[in-house]
Amino acid sequence: MGCCHYYQHVGEGCDTAFTVDTSRITFGRGCLAEVGDRARALGMKRVALFSDARMARLSHFQKVHRSLSAAGLDVVVYTDVHVEPTDQSFLDAARFASEARPDGYISLGGGSVIDTCKAANLYATHPADFLAYVNAPVGEGRAVPGPLKPHIACPTTSGTGSEVTGITIFDLLSMGAKTGIASPALRPTEALIDPDCTATLPGEVVAASGLDVLSHALESYTARPYVRRPAPQRPSLRPMSQGANPWSDLGCREALRLMGLYLERGVKDAEDHEAREQLMWASTLAGIAFGNAGVHAPHGMAYAVAGLVRDFRPSGYPQDEPLVPHGMAVIVNAPAVFRYTAQVSPERHLEAAQWLGADVRGATPSDSGEVLAGKLIQIMRAVGIPNGLGGVGYGEADVAALTEGAFPQQRLLQNAPREMTRPVLTELFRQALSYW
Amino acid sequence: MGCCHYYQHVGEGCDTAFTVDTSRITFGRGCLAEVGDRARALGMKRVALFSDARMARLSHFQKVHRSLSAAGLDVVVYTDVHVEPTDQSFLDAARFASEARPDGYISLGGGSVIDTCKAANLYATHPADFLAYVNAPVGEGRAVPGPLKPHIACPTTSGTGSEVTGITIFDLLSMGAKTGIASPALRPTEALIDPDCTATLPGEVVAASGLDVLSHALESYTARPYVRRPAPQRPSLRPMSQGANPWSDLGCREALRLMGLYLERGVKDAEDHEAREQLMWASTLAGIAFGNAGVHAPHGMAYAVAGLVRDFRPSGYPQDEPLVPHGMAVIVNAPAVFRYTAQVSPERHLEAAQWLGADVRGATPSDSGEVLAGKLIQIMRAVGIPNGLGGVGYGEADVAALTEGAFPQQRLLQNAPREMTRPVLTELFRQALSYW
Ligand SMILES: NC(=O)c1ccc[n+]([C@@H]2O[C@H](COP(=O)([O-])OP(=O)(O)OC[C@H]3O[C@@H](n4cnc5c(N)ncnc54)[C@H](O)[C@@H]3O)[C@@H](O)[C@H]2O)c1
Ligand SMILES: NC(=O)c1ccc[n+]([C@@H]2O[C@H](COP(=O)([O-])OP(=O)(O)OC[C@H]3O[C@@H](n4cnc5c(N)ncnc54)[C@H](O)[C@@H]3O)[C@@H](O)[C@H]2O)c1
Ligand SMILES: [Zn+2]
Ligand SMILES: [Zn+2]
Ligand SMILES: [Zn+2]
Ligand SMILES: [Zn+2]
Repeated sequence: MGCCHYYQHVGEGCDTAFTVDTSRITFGRGCLAEVGDRARALGMKRVALFSDARMARLSHFQKVHRSLSAAGLDVVVYTDVHVEPTDQSFLDAARFASEARPDGYISLGGGSVIDTCKAANLYATHPADFLAYVNAPVGEGRAVPGPLKPHIACPTTSGTGSEVTGITIFDLLSMGAKTGIASPALRPTEALIDPDCTATLPGEVVAASGLDVLSHALESYTARPYVRRPAPQRPSLRPMSQGANPWSDLGCREALRLMGLYLERGVKDAEDHEAREQLMWASTLAGIAFGNAGVHAPHGMAYAVAGLVRDFRPSGYPQDEPLVPHGMAVIVNAPAVFRYTAQVSPERHLEAAQWLGADVRGATPSDSGEVLAGKLIQIMRAVGIPNGLGGVGYGEADVAALTEGAFPQQRLLQNAPREMTRPVLTELFRQALSYW
Repeated sequence: MGCCHYYQHVGEGCDTAFTVDTSRITFGRGCLAEVGDRARALGMKRVALFSDARMARLSHFQKVHRSLSAAGLDVVVYTDVHVEPTDQSFLDAARFASEARPDGYISLGGGSVIDTCKAANLYATHPADFLAYVNAPVGEGRAVPGPLKPHIACPTTSGTGSEVTGITIFDLLSMGAKTGIASPALRPTEALIDPDCTATLPGEVVAASGLDVLSHALESYTARPYVRRPAPQRPSLRPMSQGANPWSDLGCREALRLMGLYLERGVKDAEDHEAREQLMWASTLAGIAFGNAGVHAPHGMAYAVAGLVRDFRPSGYPQDEPLVPHGMAVIVNAPAVFRYTAQVSPERHLEAAQWLGADVRGATPSDSGEVLAGKLIQIMRAVGIPNGLGGVGYGEADVAALTEGAFPQQRLLQNAPREMTRPVLTELFRQALSYW
């Protein structure tokens, strides 16, 4: 279980405690049908139901709509969510919410829908210039002034964990990079996680979103320990990205274990309900973990990879615009990053590889970066992820732009266990161009 | 990791989902000093600080008082908490709260203090006849009509987990048995868990409260699975005692593992800060688990064992009245109960023994009750727990009264994995009279 003293050596001026916040979650087959009763129990009368165009045609959407109506709620519907949302699509959704004036929100979809719903709720409840709440240095990083309207998030991918985090991510079109808003106020009031939703998921979405989850767990597990992060000015200002801690470790280990057992099965067989259910559960666990620990370099780099996309159109996703799905944009960086970070906590990296199911017999700590990267590459190949940055359309000539896109993601990069300077990022992007 | 299908076989008319609620928790050495800042962040202006007479003389109490005053809060103090509270002591505390009219509560102490503070907050905020909210069939089991005032719970024992549960327990003097109140509204708003508090704990309290924690984990882990509990009328009425589930399993396993590693060390050496810190963490994890899964027979039986006490006065506890400390009252029943329940889920019981550190090489499922009971007995002896019910003052002649005291605890008994009829309880109490 790793060094028992991992959290005992407190850095000078660093934090000595960690804080855990979690939403109410309900998990189980068929629990989507609970949404009406739960919305009413939260005092909602007029709800905005958010989804995207593909979801709106599936039975899950009808199920939720029926349950809300049966509970006597007024329902207004917004199904124009943009897959991989942008500042523009967030603003459209916020405008809808401001006009519809709901007293509660229901989101039904993947991370794109849940994140859009969070943003609409935020800007409709506490109107402000768009950049006001966006993470600094890109935005002003202003604190959200108060609670939002209640929000029940129903994830339909397995997944992002967005249903339990206080984070929303979008593509800032003018900058060509993703960024986000982070505030405890954004965390949905409840999450309703129904693994039955995953039966209709294309295998490609299971693969990309599953590798997102896997990386949430790996990044949180290897993040700078909370006892190495400078203490906050006031304890109540402790950030959500507080670094690895004994709480997040628990969720990470279990998520890694489940990913190792079920990801390939869930991608290859839509009828494998057991695998897809376990992936959904892993997604929520990793969400709870990274929501309290934070991710680091693979995500920071992914925001540039997704933002600078030229003409990549993966199957399983909408074909009208080029996009690098979030999980794919993350995982292509991961082997390069973990080879680099393994040197500061080799046992932890080796342990992570072991939870994923790697054979670590005979491996010494100095092998751990290679063992973990090797396991990741094996999983990527097994579930059809492209071969590194090259596979999603980038080449050596893009490395400089990718570095410039990733470097402003300081909130994430500072949560890495090892320094992420510009030259380091450049080298990592170069290493990530091709893996096999 | 047990049978992967443990939760796949849903009973006829049974529940298919589980719901998890958790308070905000902060854990770490020195975090008691955060209490003032956190109370203010919750909007408190005039706080009632609850503790007991012994605690009021310790530096932890001064630390909390100073932090609250430094944050500019008005502090009223109540230090008359009764160790192992009663209906009478709850009523006294509620009267104090009604008169003091605080807008927030801070509890600093073991389960006795935290539970008393919950009750005072409840009856001061939503006045009612005392039995109104008490669990049926002893009380009316009326639902708490709305939220309570914010409450920051600071546990100083390792522990009860009361800082994260919606439960408060007391001795109903007229009945000679313990019972409680269970409502999500009782769950403290935040928990501030500072392992530094444990340095002043007598070893006897570490032992008894540690075995309470161990039994929380074991009982939740072996409780009737949530898919075998009849579905609630409405999903929002799903009980907190919903049975074993994949969420509670995670906390249980880690708590058992930590208990196996650190309990004996923590009991025997007050200077072993590492052990005491890990026990504190295990206590919170087990609290989160049992708060969402529920305990069963060892606790149901304990309520009679504690309530019928005659003249047992254990060292380490106040000597002015006889009492069987809660953890001791629980663990004396445990080996007998788990020998009986092991037959319905032998792998799970064996796995639990393994997490506790038992050597299970060569053990078959049919040995599992014996292996687990044997491990428990070994731990009890190692930390100085009396030899069964006989050791705390009961004999064969008391078995009938104990059975009558335990049988009304249906909320707990129905959460057991095997039927707990009167004759079964009688036989289990008889088996629990002496173990070595
Ligand atoms: N807020 C957070 O904490 C957080 C965490 C990770 C990722 N994200 C964000 O989430 C987004 C990615 O979300 P995602 O991976 O869940 O995918 P997604 O929401 O972008 O959906 C991908 C595609 O799958 C479809 N789909 C979703 N559920 C389906 C189902 N059950 N059946 C059939 N089709 C279905 C969608 O319609 C869409 O076409 C990115 O924008 C990413 O940045 C946010
Ligand atoms: N509400 C729940 O979820 C829940 C769960 C389990 C138990 N309980 C209840 O909690 C009570 C038992 O609580 P407990 O085991 O924490 O013990 P306790 O609160 O009864 O305290 C036991 C003794 O230890 C002393 N003490 C506490 N902290 C100390 C410290 N840091 N240093 C020195 N002395 C200290 C107390 O003053 C007291 O004399 C029982 O009434 C039990 O029913 C409640
Ligand atoms: Zn060590
Ligand atoms: Zn992600
Ligand atoms: Zn099985
Ligand atoms: Zn207990």
